[in-house]
Amino acid sequence: MNATVITIGDEILIGQIVDTNSAWIGQQFNAIGIRLYEIISCGDDAAQIVGALDRAKATSQIVIMTGGLGPTKDDITKKTLVEYFNTELELNEEVWEKMKQIFEKRGLQVLEMNRSQAMIPKASTMLPNMRGTAQGMWFDVDGVVYISMPGVPHEMKHLMETQVLPRLKERFSFPHIYHVNLMTAGAGESVVANKLSAFEEQLPSNMKLAYLPNLGVVKLRLSAYGEGDALANVVAVQKEKIKEALGSLVYQEGEEPLEVFIGKLLSERKETISCAESCTGGYISHLLTSVAGSSAYFEGSIISYSYDVKEKVLGVKNETLMQVGAVSEECVNEMLSGLLKLTGTTYGIAVSGIAGPGGATADKPVGTVWIAVGSQQRQVAKRFTFFPSRAENIKVFSNAALNMIRLFIQGEL
Amino acid sequence: MNATVITIGDEILIGQIVDTNSAWIGQQFNAIGIRLYEIISCGDDAAQIVGALDRAKATSQIVIMTGGLGPTKDDITKKTLVEYFNTELELNEEVWEKMKQIFEKRGLQVLEMNRSQAMIPKASTMLPNMRGTAQGMWFDVDGVVYISMPGVPHEMKHLMETQVLPRLKERFSFPHIYHVNLMTAGAGESVVANKLSAFEEQLPSNMKLAYLPNLGVVKLRLSAYGEGDALANVVAVQKEKIKEALGSLVYQEGEEPLEVFIGKLLSERKETISCAESCTGGYISHLLTSVAGSSAYFEGSIISYSYDVKEKVLGVKNETLMQVGAVSEECVNEMLSGLLKLTGTTYGIAVSGIAGPGGATADKPVGTVWIAVGSQQRQVAKRFTFFPSRAENIKVFSNAALNMIRLFIQGEL
Repeated sequence: MNATVITIGDEILIGQIVDTNSAWIGQQFNAIGIRLYEIISCGDDAAQIVGALDRAKATSQIVIMTGGLGPTKDDITKKTLVEYFNTELELNEEVWEKMKQIFEKRGLQVLEMNRSQAMIPKASTMLPNMRGTAQGMWFDVDGVVYISMPGVPHEMKHLMETQVLPRLKERFSFPHIYHVNLMTAGAGESVVANKLSAFEEQLPSNMKLAYLPNLGVVKLRLSAYGEGDALANVVAVQKEKIKEALGSLVYQEGEEPLEVFIGKLLSERKETISCAESCTGGYISHLLTSVAGSSAYFEGSIISYSYDVKEKVLGVKNETLMQVGAVSEECVNEMLSGLLKLTGTTYGIAVSGIAGPGGATADKPVGTVWIAVGSQQRQVAKRFTFFPSRAENIKVFSNAALNMIRLFIQGEL
Repeated sequence: MNATVITIGDEILIGQIVDTNSAWIGQQFNAIGIRLYEIISCGDDAAQIVGALDRAKATSQIVIMTGGLGPTKDDITKKTLVEYFNTELELNEEVWEKMKQIFEKRGLQVLEMNRSQAMIPKASTMLPNMRGTAQGMWFDVDGVVYISMPGVPHEMKHLMETQVLPRLKERFSFPHIYHVNLMTAGAGESVVANKLSAFEEQLPSNMKLAYLPNLGVVKLRLSAYGEGDALANVVAVQKEKIKEALGSLVYQEGEEPLEVFIGKLLSERKETISCAESCTGGYISHLLTSVAGSSAYFEGSIISYSYDVKEKVLGVKNETLMQVGAVSEECVNEMLSGLLKLTGTTYGIAVSGIAGPGGATADKPVGTVWIAVGSQQRQVAKRFTFFPSRAENIKVFSNAALNMIRLFIQGEL
């Protein structure tokens, strides 16, 4: 079962955006046993789109298109598909009504150009987009399924999950692949791989272990190919071996990020958390509050970027800042004590470091961070050194802090 | 002058890595007037690579390949090219000597498999790689130039800059393409397009306008194709027409996000900012602090997720919370006043809303947000209603807040 992904948009070809849709679709397909044969990125140009479609159908039974479905003149994917499949557009009253309602609710005027987005090709099945005004389309022609979706990543992902993948599973029969994911935090890919070298040697040939590292978190995906119910048991046995080899590095089975896991821990225990962030600038709080329902356990945070806020709001001593500096064990411990006093939460996290590019000193290079985690009774602080890049450091510092509080809550720190 | 980029590697197709090479190459080509016709990503498979090459040479005079040049068995790009161009490999003594020296320096043993990386196709010009052991190759066959480079981004970029781009400029003469980007905030794509419909009608046929929307920010790209120095002037005239049609929706020429633009405004004025975030949970602070050097103007924030933190740290009145609720004009105004008193910054932002999925009431659906911005002297609050999804709301609320403070600082609110 082969698939081709066609991503459409001039902005991809001139490098104004990086195409992340293809990689995400590739992951989804790989997980259910569809082989992604090729990815083609072409411009908003009918001849190019037609050329890509012709080639795709020669190798693939599934052709996924993203992009070019906006209301403006440069978006021509739908028009091109109508011609390619020799069909015509008709107004979908339901979509049009809903669109008008949405615009009205937001106090906006519906424009004639929006109406074009409610026009659906007769030969297609509409895939309703609950996240935007560009609807998905499904064409099933001569044994090949062609799917067109908007290029906006969150709209595309939502359509894939709610419409495309379930429909593909119905339309085709896929080989058996059995996956188990394990989430690890606190060690890099090579450290994890080293701990698993003996495990990998004994792994049966129909099983495969993949490492998917992401800034302080490494997802492990164990895949088994074959037939029958016994497969699940075989995978379960191997999974336990991984857990044994990695100990507390594994925080969970599944694919949930640390902030979701911590949220569950806190919800179960009816406990609360707050943060005092300096160099991470709100990113830890953002991760914690990205979880729906986080108001049950997340009370709030103090982003103490300046000395002034550290002193006035968190009660960090001026001597500490002057004598050992903001990136120090003393400072994060004082930030944490002040925070826990102010918010009264069960747990707290305090972080102060040098994300870069500026701010380094002789003994504190860019990438240095002090993290303190603790409760009203006890605090633990650690120093880490990570990367040279600001954007990565903010994320890797945040994951390191979340992993520390995870271990603290679990009684392993 | 067309080019095709072929990125080679199974890891791209299963989504284990995002192909960032193509976007970077697209930017380089766009800047010097080479039109990137298509990007093809294929697996480490000879038939797929040959298929991609055949199609590429039908549309393009320049074919760039990245990936598949490692020393291991799964890397087959070089072997495939040798067969494709009906040539053979020969040992490049210079490369081999250098490779042995590098390995010796690192205390590693040179393996037979490394020797294969010093074998260069006779029909190619070697492009020396100063950053790794996989050399670049340049084939010039029947008027088409084929270039093969390693997939490691920093090695590929180095080869492009030092070898490929200079050689291409010598080999071909390129047309003129001229781009201007304008950043807008405060209106969706269709509103912006509607305001520009008359503009688009009068746009000369050698010019093109593209809309690139991203959660409250719409980037506009105006491109002109043609010859001569006059092109820049023609683009400048059209750019001014866009600015006139859109007024204060345009915040900047270029491609910088709101947080970078606001950072520049504040740096120039030597003014400071702080935030009081509820539903955005730290994301506005994260955006502001993602900018290197933001400590010059960003003092800190209070993430007041709970009523308790709103009252205790920001001084929001209990009656306000009890009578009109946290998502209200009164609440964001009190949050802002409390914040500005606490931090003493020139400006402040306060946000309270319902990101969802929970928390909606009859008159306050998911997506409702109140935003107040202001200074020590004056405050302005507005209500907006956005999307049904939590993740998007957090981002679109944050961009709306940044746009409000942008307008406030510029004296347009």
